[in-house]
Amino acid sequence: MEAVPAPVIGLDLGGTKIAAALFAADGSVPARDTRPTPAQEGPEAVLDALAAAAAAVDPDRSAAAVGVAAAGVIDPRTGRVTSATDSLPGWAGTELGAGLAARTGRPVACDNDVRATAGPELDALDGEFGSLLYAAIGTGVGGAVAVDGRMLHGAFGIAGHLGHLPSAPAAGLPCTCGATGHLEVIASGPAIAAHYARLTGTPVDRLQTVAARAAAGDAPAVRAITTGAAAAGQVLGGLANALGPDRVVVGGGVTGIGALYREALDAAFQAELMPRLRGLVPVPPRFGADAAVRGAAALTATLPLHHPGAHR
Amino acid sequence: MEAVPAPVIGLDLGGTKIAAALFAADGSVPARDTRPTPAQEGPEAVLDALAAAAAAVDPDRSAAAVGVAAAGVIDPRTGRVTSATDSLPGWAGTELGAGLAARTGRPVACDNDVRATAGPELDALDGEFGSLLYAAIGTGVGGAVAVDGRMLHGAFGIAGHLGHLPSAPAAGLPCTCGATGHLEVIASGPAIAAHYARLTGTPVDRLQTVAARAAAGDAPAVRAITTGAAAAGQVLGGLANALGPDRVVVGGGVTGIGALYREALDAAFQAELMPRLRGLVPVPPRFGADAAVRGAAALTATLPLHHPGAHR
Repeated sequence: MEAVPAPVIGLDLGGTKIAAALFAADGSVPARDTRPTPAQEGPEAVLDALAAAAAAVDPDRSAAAVGVAAAGVIDPRTGRVTSATDSLPGWAGTELGAGLAARTGRPVACDNDVRATAGPELDALDGEFGSLLYAAIGTGVGGAVAVDGRMLHGAFGIAGHLGHLPSAPAAGLPCTCGATGHLEVIASGPAIAAHYARLTGTPVDRLQTVAARAAAGDAPAVRAITTGAAAAGQVLGGLANALGPDRVVVGGGVTGIGALYREALDAAFQAELMPRLRGLVPVPPRFGADAAVRGAAALTATLPLHHPGAHR
Repeated sequence: MEAVPAPVIGLDLGGTKIAAALFAADGSVPARDTRPTPAQEGPEAVLDALAAAAAAVDPDRSAAAVGVAAAGVIDPRTGRVTSATDSLPGWAGTELGAGLAARTGRPVACDNDVRATAGPELDALDGEFGSLLYAAIGTGVGGAVAVDGRMLHGAFGIAGHLGHLPSAPAAGLPCTCGATGHLEVIASGPAIAAHYARLTGTPVDRLQTVAARAAAGDAPAVRAITTGAAAAGQVLGGLANALGPDRVVVGGGVTGIGALYREALDAAFQAELMPRLRGLVPVPPRFGADAAVRGAAALTATLPLHHPGAHR
């Protein structure tokens, strides 16, 4: 870790868009940029677009460093993409840290987007040894885990894959990872919609349709939603027992579909807890739309920096 | 953390016995002591016995510090016992660090016995950022988790309670912690014996009886053992996905009951893994009977020290 003076650029790379912001020493944001991710043009084009977004928010080249929060499994020590989904073809194996350092001429810190987003939540905990369980439930189920004041990365940067813990109601269902019975295939947005389709024999286009039917009292819709929510709550409660978090954050698009979801998740979570943890309640993310770029910028203060010309 | 010169005393406190050893700078062990734990006489008597064991292995008072590995949930930062089982009545709330520092006149580092035992396993990993999942399956299911080179403690020292993750075959069974459906109530030694009794209507006195019947081809015995083993393997595989360990260690008395157990655990573990982790295989502990006292002594090099007269 090296001290990096402000200003710092934060980049958030998703499958469809890149967000960039320049952060001044006082936390203000003098410049922002958003552009599409040229996902289908391959990883070099994505790196070029990231560098262009960085240049756009820092026209007078005042930034001391770049922090990037990226989709996929990122190993912040090597700066390499460990693995990725189809949303970024060819992304696995990309030299994100070195490639972006070469293009921007600046030291680069990188991590996956969920860990980066969770970073400011960890900083907001009381004391320097706080522990945090952060789940992001959307088109997949991801997360970040910080214990004793440090964000965990694990071998190959894998730590935080909360969607690939076993879940009883998912038993036998094939997971995106190749195994079966994982939380993600019963609790993600597409998984809840698929569960509804299995219960009714009627495919639905999206989760919001299921949510609307549940709100109208449709029993299979209620069951698909509460099953997914309870599965997530149960796994998170068990993980809380295993890791001892001070705070449990559950965010992502699925969590916004209504009180039915939150209540089922909270009840299942609470039912799992050992006595010393009872009363711990999952909360929504503390920070809003800015969390990812802000967390990305903050990576430059805590992670290894990849310097221009150092690798490759 | 403070550098502690050798020799150092390691103490291992269990529900029935206390083991003590003096470790010299070269790793040799000039003195050892074993004595019963006066569990029924209360926590002050236990602290007195720990101090007596420390004095017995260090008659010329050469030790610079004392490390203690204790049963129960221990918070190494406060030096306090967060919670404990019936094996040590009144143990919860005990000022282990300060109480032992006052009695020995030496700085004391303390942690729970599983984390202490796992410490040398972490030190033996390649590199400084190794990650370790360590499960101890015996009369309960405990464990220790180290990620990115550091043993995790979590809020109240809770990290490592691997027995309190949900497990499908345990659904509905009451757990020692008050919840239901946790791994411990299907995978511990007593849990496997109880499962066999449920399957056959015939209570058995101990796990070894079930193991002997399984070896003779008794189907319910095979089923009770493989169910417990597979439940443990499944939970550990899911946790591996969530945390990214470089090494997974499974020890404890239950794991010694035969190849049937190991094979079922390994297969279930393997079936859970995400692609990047495939090939990771649970292994037995690297260190033998000495691991707990050796790990206890090593705590003095990594944990906060509680000094005589500093608290209370």
